[in-house]
Amino acid sequence: MDRRIREHAETLVDWSARIEPGDDVVVSVGEGAHELGVAVAEQLGQRGANMLARYGSPELSRAYLRAHDGEFESDPAFELALYERADSVLSLRGYRNTSARADVPGEIRRQYATAREGIREAHTDTDWVSTVHPTRAAAQQAGMSYEAYQDFVYDAILRDWAALADEMDQLKDRLDDARRVRVVAEETGTDLSFSLVDRQAVNSAASVAYDSHNLPSGEVFTAPRDATGEITFDVPMTIRGARVRNVSLELVDGVVVDWSAELGGEVLADILETDDGARRFGEFGVGMNRGIDRVTDQILFDEKMAGTVHFALGRAYDACLPEGQSGNDSAVHVDLIADMQQEHTYIEIDGEVIQRNGYFRWEDGFEP
Amino acid sequence: MDRRIREHAETLVDWSARIEPGDDVVVSVGEGAHELGVAVAEQLGQRGANMLARYGSPELSRAYLRAHDGEFESDPAFELALYERADSVLSLRGYRNTSARADVPGEIRRQYATAREGIREAHTDTDWVSTVHPTRAAAQQAGMSYEAYQDFVYDAILRDWAALADEMDQLKDRLDDARRVRVVAEETGTDLSFSLVDRQAVNSAASVAYDSHNLPSGEVFTAPRDATGEITFDVPMTIRGARVRNVSLELVDGVVVDWSAELGGEVLADILETDDGARRFGEFGVGMNRGIDRVTDQILFDEKMAGTVHFALGRAYDACLPEGQSGNDSAVHVDLIADMQQEHTYIEIDGEVIQRNGYFRWEDGFEP
Repeated sequence: MDRRIREHAETLVDWSARIEPGDDVVVSVGEGAHELGVAVAEQLGQRGANMLARYGSPELSRAYLRAHDGEFESDPAFELALYERADSVLSLRGYRNTSARADVPGEIRRQYATAREGIREAHTDTDWVSTVHPTRAAAQQAGMSYEAYQDFVYDAILRDWAALADEMDQLKDRLDDARRVRVVAEETGTDLSFSLVDRQAVNSAASVAYDSHNLPSGEVFTAPRDATGEITFDVPMTIRGARVRNVSLELVDGVVVDWSAELGGEVLADILETDDGARRFGEFGVGMNRGIDRVTDQILFDEKMAGTVHFALGRAYDACLPEGQSGNDSAVHVDLIADMQQEHTYIEIDGEVIQRNGYFRWEDGFEP
Repeated sequence: MDRRIREHAETLVDWSARIEPGDDVVVSVGEGAHELGVAVAEQLGQRGANMLARYGSPELSRAYLRAHDGEFESDPAFELALYERADSVLSLRGYRNTSARADVPGEIRRQYATAREGIREAHTDTDWVSTVHPTRAAAQQAGMSYEAYQDFVYDAILRDWAALADEMDQLKDRLDDARRVRVVAEETGTDLSFSLVDRQAVNSAASVAYDSHNLPSGEVFTAPRDATGEITFDVPMTIRGARVRNVSLELVDGVVVDWSAELGGEVLADILETDDGARRFGEFGVGMNRGIDRVTDQILFDEKMAGTVHFALGRAYDACLPEGQSGNDSAVHVDLIADMQQEHTYIEIDGEVIQRNGYFRWEDGFEP
């Protein structure tokens, strides 16, 4: 076994999921994630946790959903009981074909999702963590060779997470105290500011101990208010199967009032028209994972890339809001990413530049 | 998809498991059983059943068991809850390496099995069915080419089960009325007799409707009492990864008092030492599936081969016992097979020969 697979499993079980002896752990193994599954099973055995392995197969799911008439039973008792009693759920994704479910009708997906709200809640109440095992299919989607893609994934995952969490805490503290944040990138005409009054940032350090459920992670995010100005998202993405490039938005008092896109205008129009909340930002995030040094068109990695920021159109996370309050609501949450490593870019908090050209003020290379 | 894979799935879901709309169905997919898993998922979707897919991976199991210290928690709550609420469990075995768990210590297996009695009971209380998807590893174990092995497996599975069930009813009737049965094979020194008073035979017609839980099946079995005499099991087998050949047992009043084995003595010793019940027979079965015409070193097939009988060390099935009574109890159930097609072999029920040299008295070829 590649030494890195075992290290990945150790990071997942110890740092991310904080598995303890006697924990009831569901492990969902993707079609292409077998090797990681074996490594995780070994770690769980060593720690004296209880393991139940699920088969997270998009092809089984596709066959089942396409054959079904769509009248799904609400929260089947056997599956609900499993998740209600589970302490942790580790999802090991491993794609053999990233388009395996492309021909499942949207209506059936919606009906299935609607029938499983209770199961989704029970799952969310566990210490769940999603991670990804590098496969040839995922390498292909990233436009990379398999060997290079494996290096890329493990660079992103096998980090000194405790040190990164400490660094991210510095930014979290600044954002928690912030009244107004300004994001500027002169080359793309970006100059946007927003309020963070009554908002709390999340240190997404790839661990349930930080309320962070993806491995890799490495971002600090919060819920922006009343964004005003212009911003261009120059990191290319695929959204709902469509290529999207250079989306520019103009916002006034938190609402998108004008927009354009070099590519993907149709998908963007669709998103903006979903509901009122889809024309407001639900998230402002700052990528801080220096292991991610290139765009691979996989949101799990791209939005964590050090030297980028992202805003999401739509739903805000409760963790960023005062207890009992809810933030921007929407059926969608779509991230858009801007590169902050070019010349003449900076992030300003209450008048002080805290990042310039991709470097934070506490880093070497920062120019005041 | 090979047309036979879909027919296999249909036979499993309709004839064997009798799946109804709304049933909660656990599907356990072996490492090499993906294609059958997809076909079964399709059938379950069509019938409006609820599906939860498990990953039945011997390699995950091996990694977990070898890493564990052996102090397993008794019946972990999340897994128990799943099986207590499931209506059916369909196990789709599909081996990529039939020796995948060969280096798991017997002591650890025993501790694991012992800790899971409640889960095993909950599983047994469902409409469970085990079947096997033909793989190259299984073909190799059978000493066959992959193509020929696929033909062999589907010959055994895709039968006229209703017709075979009728034929097997004849033997079941004879065993139900029997007081004492004697099995003789002069060539191997076998001469064993046992009581069937208060015992009921099961017509194992590969359907839960017949209390029969394997596809393929095609045997009639019951729970022997007070077996006395000697028997040699001359059909070669692999048990727990070890080659086993010519096991000879001597029994007095139902208990094994002496034994030998040409090969596999260590594994046999391990089994016999599991618990008290492991030194008694829990099952006597007669193979009647004429689609199985050769030994392939896979118990699911071999024990159903027309012209063989088998006895299991360990646990008896409740279905063979009067309501409310329980039979031989053990953490194990290990089948051993004897060939009854050679010269000078016969099965006698209360003094009447009902099978000689592999032919039943109602078949052409039977010599009274």
